[in-house]
Amino acid sequence: MKRVAIIGVGHTKFGKLEDKNLMDLLCDASLEAIHDSNTENEKFDSVYVGCMSAHAFNNISGIASALVDKIGIIPAAANHIKNGPASGGSAIIAGFQSIASGLSDLTLVVGAEKMTHISTPGYITSNVATLTHPEAERIHGISLPGMAGLLARTYLKKYNAKLSWLSDIAIKNHDNGALNSLAHFQRSIKNFMESAIKKGKGTWDNVHEFLEDDDRNPIIADPLRLFHICPISDGAAALVLCDAKKAKNYCDRPILISGIGQATDTHIVYEREDITTLRALKICSQKAYQMAGLKPSDIDVAELHDAFEILEAVESEDIGFFAKGEGAKAAHEGLTQIDGQIPINPSGGLKARGHPLGATGVAQVVELFWQLRGEAEKRQVQDAEKGITCNFGGFGNNIISVIVEKM
Amino acid sequence: MKRVAIIGVGHTKFGKLEDKNLMDLLCDASLEAIHDSNTENEKFDSVYVGCMSAHAFNNISGIASALVDKIGIIPAAANHIKNGPASGGSAIIAGFQSIASGLSDLTLVVGAEKMTHISTPGYITSNVATLTHPEAERIHGISLPGMAGLLARTYLKKYNAKLSWLSDIAIKNHDNGALNSLAHFQRSIKNFMESAIKKGKGTWDNVHEFLEDDDRNPIIADPLRLFHICPISDGAAALVLCDAKKAKNYCDRPILISGIGQATDTHIVYEREDITTLRALKICSQKAYQMAGLKPSDIDVAELHDAFEILEAVESEDIGFFAKGEGAKAAHEGLTQIDGQIPINPSGGLKARGHPLGATGVAQVVELFWQLRGEAEKRQVQDAEKGITCNFGGFGNNIISVIVEKM
Repeated sequence: MKRVAIIGVGHTKFGKLEDKNLMDLLCDASLEAIHDSNTENEKFDSVYVGCMSAHAFNNISGIASALVDKIGIIPAAANHIKNGPASGGSAIIAGFQSIASGLSDLTLVVGAEKMTHISTPGYITSNVATLTHPEAERIHGISLPGMAGLLARTYLKKYNAKLSWLSDIAIKNHDNGALNSLAHFQRSIKNFMESAIKKGKGTWDNVHEFLEDDDRNPIIADPLRLFHICPISDGAAALVLCDAKKAKNYCDRPILISGIGQATDTHIVYEREDITTLRALKICSQKAYQMAGLKPSDIDVAELHDAFEILEAVESEDIGFFAKGEGAKAAHEGLTQIDGQIPINPSGGLKARGHPLGATGVAQVVELFWQLRGEAEKRQVQDAEKGITCNFGGFGNNIISVIVEKM
Repeated sequence: MKRVAIIGVGHTKFGKLEDKNLMDLLCDASLEAIHDSNTENEKFDSVYVGCMSAHAFNNISGIASALVDKIGIIPAAANHIKNGPASGGSAIIAGFQSIASGLSDLTLVVGAEKMTHISTPGYITSNVATLTHPEAERIHGISLPGMAGLLARTYLKKYNAKLSWLSDIAIKNHDNGALNSLAHFQRSIKNFMESAIKKGKGTWDNVHEFLEDDDRNPIIADPLRLFHICPISDGAAALVLCDAKKAKNYCDRPILISGIGQATDTHIVYEREDITTLRALKICSQKAYQMAGLKPSDIDVAELHDAFEILEAVESEDIGFFAKGEGAKAAHEGLTQIDGQIPINPSGGLKARGHPLGATGVAQVVELFWQLRGEAEKRQVQDAEKGITCNFGGFGNNIISVIVEKM
């Protein structure tokens, strides 16, 4: 198997991008990655586009075919990969395999979603709910936020954890997002509180008190409140991949994809032995660690899939950083902050960087690329040499982990 | 690059399958392929599902994740690949790369579509039209049948060909489909004519006269009539792939994927230098021939993408069997019949086997697998040892060719 390197990246601003449509976002991130990798004059063999709902949200399909023409790289092979909110991670695996097999020498991977123009959030929630099991789950009206609420309730009870510890994860991720000029929310939660005080909405002694206010932070899926859940965002991110042997022909400091893994779990969540364990993550991260010859304690920085803050806690355990039931507590104790034992989501994560579904898995790797090159500005993790991601599809039924290292 | 073999296949009946939903079809074809390859007790590493419109037609997504659970092969990696009517071919390429890279040892590729339950064909046509360019094409109301009509008109004029030669392709494909117990239409057009005569709908001296009757064969996209266009079908097809070195551990007569290629062309059809030339097919088939070390004259049997019969004519040229402008004439002269110089679509093609969009690219390879193993029953091409496919996405903007050979 050929080794695969990342030689350049692209990342649009995430957020409510009113003047961009889906194709604009795909093109912007792609062209930035092509420029960043000095491959403007090279022949691309293939393009893999991760996007969950181009047709349902944007009324277009064939987006990969459209992209290669728009950015001027026909006749490159072009494919669109769907795997719910893990579509970006799946596109990376597809691109990785294309290079690793030798079928492609130069591959573009891009993930994107355009969602904020949809005026009824219920349309998005019901669209995302098509990922649940039609007869065992969806017919009863449960949505993904509903499942996250049930998971949080079970986790907090089983491990004697506190809801405020999940708030600590949100606080950390907003603090990190405030340092990321591409994040959807570049504001700490303290800043939200101070702004509410200024507007005469109330007074609170501290951020936790603010987050317990039903008016300022309403319950969405009991016990989870608004600030425990990621926003709806627009955005795109891209990577240029090549055979690691040729990477230095294009750039001085390529980053190696040293491990990659994907695994599935039961479609129906209640069929799992323990709903607080993400078996798919345990398996896929184990595959990635094995391929890279690394263990969790070797990792310097991680980008995990906190579509709901409870997920970051659980993922930080199943990816091997903390013992079962200790993830939320570790976050509460500050171990996952940028200067902590294992920094998680220095980008701001899905909570603050935002979560344009198909873009997220790619954006996670873009963040690690910058972290490993020491280009993460004010949110830089010191001496970051190895990073891992978790990109979560369905409700944990399809998860991807990517490990990157300095070459 | 590891060589990749097909060790078993599955293929549901194609047609109007009222008692099957999309997941049923995916499961049926997958389980048949798993049984056929003697891999019931093996560990699958990955699954690639080709399907164009699961969400729009069937209101489900995450179909690859759902499938691996339903057929009992979690934690296999599962991904859904979209490339319009070439989604099946794209799933094959993804599966091929997974084995060729060494990331998977055993991979399931399955394509499917469930369409006939949709009561308004216009919904399907407008859905498929999302593949066209939104500003340059779709906004003006053109659909894919409309484009095929324009292509046919240009081709017939430019090459001094006759519409009746396109009818000859339909006649051949219906004759072949009549020999295929899995085809949507297992009836010759002569049989349609005789049935109409019996019902007192008219009398005609021969099949061509019947096909020129505005009542029996109405114009759909001038000059193309009903019988120049494939039906709307349900169905699924599947392949089990493994490292060619290990293929004989599973079955006696594996079939090698000796060449594979994919290429794109302009999104906007009028931007092509010559709309009667499928540049993407020229490039992708050339890649496949090169990988296999073969030339067009080495091929014994082909499965081409006759969503419209004009496409089979053009494809038979651009894939290298006939000179430009000679494809329709060659069909008229019988060169593409089962006992002809180069048999095309012995399965009945999209016209008679049917065209469940995502299934087609996979079904083409299943047909070649049977042809090369001498298992194609009454439609068997004598001494078939090498075959090629053309799976056509968008309106020719994304095409895949697969070459298979006896091992």
